Amino acid sequence: MNKTLFALAALSLPHFALSTPAAAQSGPGPCEDSCTLEQRADAALEGDQLAWDFVEGITTEVGPRQAGTEAEKRGREWAMAWLRAQGFTKVADEPFMMDTWVPGDTHEAEILAPFAQPLVVQPLGNSASTGPDGITAEVVYFPTVAELREAPDGSLKGKIAFVSHAMTPTQDGSQYGFAGPARWVGAGIAASKGAVATVIKSVGTDRNRLPHVGGTSFPEGVAPTPAGALSVPDAINLERMFERADGKPITMKLTLTPRRLGQTQSGNVVGEIVGRNPSLPPVLVACHIDSWWNGTGAFDDGAGCGIVAAAAKHVAATGQPLRTIRVLMAGAEETGLWGSRAYSDAHIDEPIAVGLESDFGADRIWQFQSNFREANPDLHARLARAVARFGVSDSTAVASGGADINIARDQETAIIDLQQDGTRYFDIHHTPNDTLDRIDRAQLRQNVAVWTQVVGILANEQGPIKP
Amino acid sequence: MNKTLFALAALSLPHFALSTPAAAQSGPGPCEDSCTLEQRADAALEGDQLAWDFVEGITTEVGPRQAGTEAEKRGREWAMAWLRAQGFTKVADEPFMMDTWVPGDTHEAEILAPFAQPLVVQPLGNSASTGPDGITAEVVYFPTVAELREAPDGSLKGKIAFVSHAMTPTQDGSQYGFAGPARWVGAGIAASKGAVATVIKSVGTDRNRLPHVGGTSFPEGVAPTPAGALSVPDAINLERMFERADGKPITMKLTLTPRRLGQTQSGNVVGEIVGRNPSLPPVLVACHIDSWWNGTGAFDDGAGCGIVAAAAKHVAATGQPLRTIRVLMAGAEETGLWGSRAYSDAHIDEPIAVGLESDFGADRIWQFQSNFREANPDLHARLARAVARFGVSDSTAVASGGADINIARDQETAIIDLQQDGTRYFDIHHTPNDTLDRIDRAQLRQNVAVWTQVVGILANEQGPIKP
Repeated sequence: MNKTLFALAALSLPHFALSTPAAAQSGPGPCEDSCTLEQRADAALEGDQLAWDFVEGITTEVGPRQAGTEAEKRGREWAMAWLRAQGFTKVADEPFMMDTWVPGDTHEAEILAPFAQPLVVQPLGNSASTGPDGITAEVVYFPTVAELREAPDGSLKGKIAFVSHAMTPTQDGSQYGFAGPARWVGAGIAASKGAVATVIKSVGTDRNRLPHVGGTSFPEGVAPTPAGALSVPDAINLERMFERADGKPITMKLTLTPRRLGQTQSGNVVGEIVGRNPSLPPVLVACHIDSWWNGTGAFDDGAGCGIVAAAAKHVAATGQPLRTIRVLMAGAEETGLWGSRAYSDAHIDEPIAVGLESDFGADRIWQFQSNFREANPDLHARLARAVARFGVSDSTAVASGGADINIARDQETAIIDLQQDGTRYFDIHHTPNDTLDRIDRAQLRQNVAVWTQVVGILANEQGPIKP
Repeated sequence: MNKTLFALAALSLPHFALSTPAAAQSGPGPCEDSCTLEQRADAALEGDQLAWDFVEGITTEVGPRQAGTEAEKRGREWAMAWLRAQGFTKVADEPFMMDTWVPGDTHEAEILAPFAQPLVVQPLGNSASTGPDGITAEVVYFPTVAELREAPDGSLKGKIAFVSHAMTPTQDGSQYGFAGPARWVGAGIAASKGAVATVIKSVGTDRNRLPHVGGTSFPEGVAPTPAGALSVPDAINLERMFERADGKPITMKLTLTPRRLGQTQSGNVVGEIVGRNPSLPPVLVACHIDSWWNGTGAFDDGAGCGIVAAAAKHVAATGQPLRTIRVLMAGAEETGLWGSRAYSDAHIDEPIAVGLESDFGADRIWQFQSNFREANPDLHARLARAVARFGVSDSTAVASGGADINIARDQETAIIDLQQDGTRYFDIHHTPNDTLDRIDRAQLRQNVAVWTQVVGILANEQGPIKP
């Protein structure tokens, strides 16, 4: 929906456009064995194929990769084979155990009265099962989580809560914080007030009949109930039913059959570009390999894995870097950062220099943030200057890092956030539409170019990189 | 996706823009009881609520209306109540019997090897059932129907045919003729060559994981096989699998459980604005009340019914017309024009003056066509001139009428086609996304304005209206 907008945005970036001639002069051909880092980054902007190859491959040959399942395992194996084929060393699958939830086979919602019609629904992670025969109950409508919170204790006994919100697209994704609680805590609050089940308006900004799933949670002592996401148009239709029902009760039959598999094995895929001085703390570049079951994990997060791995390889192509670059493709991010925590636990005593992650789709990077702007202003300024030609602006915001670099937060190391344009991210996030089709190749290449530039500078930084 | 395009198109129509001040002066207020037809049409452009009310109501209070089912019956009852509330007379449900096909509950496709992953599929109308255990077979890929036709007899024995195509959006919808055969005849051709089932790339121009369903057919003597539509992204993914499989066989498990209900009752909803001279042949304005089961029938064709009924009522508001205006909301269009044929059979001896139908979404009308440009050039020219201010151009193409006005073709009467912009029609057509959200209110009002103008002139035409 927003492609035109992005095309216009790209055209309006003078530095973005100006970089083309340089890239044309210094493409992969002429300087194949002797590119400077800048030339290599420019060439990536012009013609990187690696990130696309990764995300095309994993979405086509593996597809959905629900955490803790056999499909995620195939995803790890595919990624390891790809990393080895690209020349990464020390490629490994570092296993960990996790509690695994799977969505089951039946996902149905139907209004029985007064306006009988089916609605499109999918279960939220941690949802309980209704059993195959479903639950039939009156629906109680809460336009926002705030109103749900105000419902008296016990007032939802025997009812299905319907929690809505109004989410709009934002470049920085900040509306996720506004609308997200409907998913994160809506079902738990409703269950604590007696609801037998909860449905929410999908936390998304599109108008497709494709639910946005994701994890929900229940407070300690509150038994999980069935919880599902209606697609945005279905939720809006249900809102209209409340407007038109003249106070008549609205009855829903909800059937969701997710299951808990108990403890299963997941794993983190790692690989390295070994540096000239492996005793220096490495640069850690991260993404996650798992996806929700309903999409193929292109935007979330196949693209991110393609971007960070492509950047590491492009840096290596300019000559062996001083520091090791370590790629972490974490397992089981979506269902609770299991891989991120396992990686930190396993490697907490091996200092890293700096951590950065790509996990916000494949649209262009527009802002550079670090957590060492005050402690190491020279390095911050050099990095910011180096990416300005790709249309990336500097920021005083303090980087806090993505979900999969717990180790950077646990070790209190340097962190960089390369902020991507999230305007259409929540059109796609956690839906069946998270497929290769959504990726704009030019914007994907801009990500690789910026990452190549940043990782190349970091991996060749002699001095300490500290926040 | 194309909203920006439409907004720009609307802005670039000088007459469209110029009509606003006139409408503001002559809105429903000042001339409520004494509007000229032109004022009323201008007022509809500015502020019609009737068409929206119809399509909002039927999609919210009834939803999907599969032909021959109880849901379609509820749709007829809803429409009759609405017509009566709006002052239409002789409102009736004219019953007919039909062969009814329903989609059943299980719609699953899964690639088992070499790249295991689920694909999104829905059954085509007239598809046979695979049974609940599904069919597992090797997939044979045909990029076009032409290549499928060239496959030797018997060469598909035991195989699942996958028929693709490349459809692009067109303003006049003409790409439907190019890509449509994949759905209309693909499964029949494949079955005649021994295929056990067929899947097609959805005949659609979007990139959502929502199949475009619709009817398929099997040649006489060829037993129907299971036949499904993959969503466009899933079909493209399957194409990529063929590219990446290095000739290894691709195996699919397909489970579709549609059923035939035998003969069930459907019906045509009719209603009238009675003219001053009821002995003159009436103006017949048509649409269809049924929809495919997977959407709510907003674009196809709730909007059409709202447009024609709103126009008839606006014409009546300018004074009782000379001729009767008859509204036909046909049943069971989607599964084979059952209602259109039944209406013609029942009313063949009652001459109509002219027939026109709205059944191509809710986007703006851009062209006026008749089949009497040569026989009645004065009337053609008056109509064309009258709608020019709404951005509608004249055409030398000969109108042939929509699916539900068989009676006009059977009686060889005058026919008018008010061509709608179809650029985004096949993003939505026959998908779950056919919901109220897709309707642009301004473009819907432009339809009502043009229809009001045209129907008003026709209903007050003294002389014969002949092709």
